Amino acid sequence: MEFIKTYIEQNKERFLDELFALLRIPSISSLAEHKPDMQRAAEYWKQSLLDAGADKAEIYQTPGNPVVFGQKIVNQAWPTVLVYAHMDVMPVDPVNLWNSPPFEPEIRDGKIWGRGADDDKGQGFMHAKAFEMLVRTGKLPCNVKFMIEGEEEIGSPNMGAWCEAHKEMLEADVILVSDTSMIAPDIPSITQGLRGLAYLEVEVTGPNRDLHSGIFGGAVANPANILAKMIASLHDEKNRVTIPGFYDDVMEVSHTERQAMAQAPFNLEQYKKALDLKEVWGEEGFTTTERTGIRPTLDVCGIWSGYTGEGAKTVLPSKAFAKVSMRLVPNQDYKKISRQFIEHFEKMAPPFVKVKVTDLHGGQGYVAPLEMPAWRAADKAYLDTFGKKPIPTRSGGSIPIISTFEQVLGIKSLLMGFGLESDAIHSPNENYPLHNFYKGIETIAAFYIHFAEEMKK
Amino acid sequence: MEFIKTYIEQNKERFLDELFALLRIPSISSLAEHKPDMQRAAEYWKQSLLDAGADKAEIYQTPGNPVVFGQKIVNQAWPTVLVYAHMDVMPVDPVNLWNSPPFEPEIRDGKIWGRGADDDKGQGFMHAKAFEMLVRTGKLPCNVKFMIEGEEEIGSPNMGAWCEAHKEMLEADVILVSDTSMIAPDIPSITQGLRGLAYLEVEVTGPNRDLHSGIFGGAVANPANILAKMIASLHDEKNRVTIPGFYDDVMEVSHTERQAMAQAPFNLEQYKKALDLKEVWGEEGFTTTERTGIRPTLDVCGIWSGYTGEGAKTVLPSKAFAKVSMRLVPNQDYKKISRQFIEHFEKMAPPFVKVKVTDLHGGQGYVAPLEMPAWRAADKAYLDTFGKKPIPTRSGGSIPIISTFEQVLGIKSLLMGFGLESDAIHSPNENYPLHNFYKGIETIAAFYIHFAEEMKK
Repeated sequence: MEFIKTYIEQNKERFLDELFALLRIPSISSLAEHKPDMQRAAEYWKQSLLDAGADKAEIYQTPGNPVVFGQKIVNQAWPTVLVYAHMDVMPVDPVNLWNSPPFEPEIRDGKIWGRGADDDKGQGFMHAKAFEMLVRTGKLPCNVKFMIEGEEEIGSPNMGAWCEAHKEMLEADVILVSDTSMIAPDIPSITQGLRGLAYLEVEVTGPNRDLHSGIFGGAVANPANILAKMIASLHDEKNRVTIPGFYDDVMEVSHTERQAMAQAPFNLEQYKKALDLKEVWGEEGFTTTERTGIRPTLDVCGIWSGYTGEGAKTVLPSKAFAKVSMRLVPNQDYKKISRQFIEHFEKMAPPFVKVKVTDLHGGQGYVAPLEMPAWRAADKAYLDTFGKKPIPTRSGGSIPIISTFEQVLGIKSLLMGFGLESDAIHSPNENYPLHNFYKGIETIAAFYIHFAEEMKK
Repeated sequence: MEFIKTYIEQNKERFLDELFALLRIPSISSLAEHKPDMQRAAEYWKQSLLDAGADKAEIYQTPGNPVVFGQKIVNQAWPTVLVYAHMDVMPVDPVNLWNSPPFEPEIRDGKIWGRGADDDKGQGFMHAKAFEMLVRTGKLPCNVKFMIEGEEEIGSPNMGAWCEAHKEMLEADVILVSDTSMIAPDIPSITQGLRGLAYLEVEVTGPNRDLHSGIFGGAVANPANILAKMIASLHDEKNRVTIPGFYDDVMEVSHTERQAMAQAPFNLEQYKKALDLKEVWGEEGFTTTERTGIRPTLDVCGIWSGYTGEGAKTVLPSKAFAKVSMRLVPNQDYKKISRQFIEHFEKMAPPFVKVKVTDLHGGQGYVAPLEMPAWRAADKAYLDTFGKKPIPTRSGGSIPIISTFEQVLGIKSLLMGFGLESDAIHSPNENYPLHNFYKGIETIAAFYIHFAEEMKK
């Protein structure tokens, strides 16, 4: 694969110049005044794909921001890779904390500094350049499609419908995404799993108005006390969630996979120190990494009732509220879990109170099978470029669009992220090491070669 | 006691005119701009006592509002009654809800309308007039002292120290107070017990900052969940408070007294309907009236943690807070209970969290013994004037100054209240029925006669 290194070496300055032009466009999707910048970013991406060697590239309008689609079909019989990236970025406030202007990218200390340097212009653009290299050197071993969206930072509200409307056009064997991070500069990893989410709000009503806690206290159920009791009962003494059926669909992770996950460097003492914790907490029988990676959980994200100001006010509140999020693992259906929660919460309400549960939000989990050809190809590509296989990691978080791709298009994604924790995405002074940028291009190109081979087996 | 009725009949218009002059003074203690009105109210009270027949009457300045003290010593060997009342009133907002201006008292539908009509100018002034009657008719059978304070509605911050400084001057056999209500116009009652109060705030800290509930949820203790669990554990399955030692000093009420209390009319169905409750709640083995009257309780007055705005935010909060009030019964020491709570709460905190407990406020409970001469005298006085004995009631609320009197002066109080629930004290359209005003004067005068006799026994 020497040609890859050579090509990068010969074009590294131009790659950066081209990325910098993209970084200079302030394509902030959450701010209406940047609507024209979204269009500019789309046009820049369209032209970049054409310049790189795409047969065609188009801008698709949606009810929100545009999506750029481009492709190169080398041979209908060959496998197809669909690349997903996003061209929108987060706002830059507080702008005074930036050491250099967010939309005037520059190189310092071996890093690219600017909004979007990592998330996801820097990481996304690696794919354009890996594609270009394979086209120009005549080594592209598969068909390639690109879909670059403009609303990832606001929750991809139109992407599901857009995919639904263009199913045939988007047909592919795998979706390739670089929008996550790796464990450390020399420890490559691939996010294998994402958790799903069910998020509900509960309201417990006691008396029909706030009461004097002296006159009525002890004789009327206090909804704050009752809510506390109900929430407390949602975990048993092993810190397992007690909602009937909650674990029914949990995909048990094999001993082998748990062993592979355990390879990821993790220092419990450092973890506790960073959070100032004497002890960690969680479901009995699982490690900290497993608790967030492969196990579903239930957390109160907010709770409120009664008087919350300064000093003492003696009130027996009429109502108490809580927001509850449940992180789900692959195969758990968030709609089913939400229904189970509602049923359980309503059923366990004592006759002293009324309860109301509102389903606020949800999304499915995701997991990539380690046996899929794309994973094997990735293993080989990282071995080529990093000298070691990527560690499969499970993120406790959720990227709902990834599960949407699976549901709508029926295609698995491979989350080859090259970012680092220190890249400060979403924060002031976002950056992306040059090393990771070039290493990413190299690894992606190697992936294509191995992927085509794996698909032939 | 025919002379009492006759005297009232002959002077009823003048009594009202004099009360109205007091009601016209806007002596709102919580508003600084009414400071001069507090002085005017004090002067009016001083003059009223002198006019009624006091040997002397003085205005005592305090760091806050003045206290009026007056007395008539008929015979050093005779028993002494110390009357307590307050001349300050609550604010009048929202003033547009008043049907007549709050400080322009008027009679409509057989009631006096205006701020302070009941609380406590109307009820307090009955004592001035009962005293006047006994002096002018030459029937005063005991010594009488008056202390009229100006800060009751703001928690009597200076009254304890003032009593401490004038212990000797305040020596008496009983303190007589009309600042509470009776069950119904034809069902006289005396508040026999008041609950004490211990009020604390708890803070539970998990991780040192708010965390992403996906990345960390399930692996780090959530302080909101832990706080819920801790609060839930404060009651057992019989709804008894689980703090060790909590019930140690509770004065068990005798079967006889519980039977007397049960005489008070109480309709559970109406109570539930008024509060829109399917079921009441409380400590096993006690009635609703007993639960607030003779049993200590624990209530969450406020709880808050994490995200409490609209919609879904996935946060694992760093901190969770609650305000907890415990209503205590006579003989329970609020300082001891506060200490027990702090100790218990700190002790039960699991190693995943840190807890901090702050003692915000407290006050002792109070109970008047049914065997004291003043109670026997009251029984006879109400028999004379209402044709029935007053029902002893226990209020779930607290009037801290009453327990302060007992602690500082060593004197029991008799809470002969003539107000009604419908008097709308603290609210717009405060009122006081003329019937209650005159019946109060009559009963107080009768009380003096019987009290002197009882003290001779």
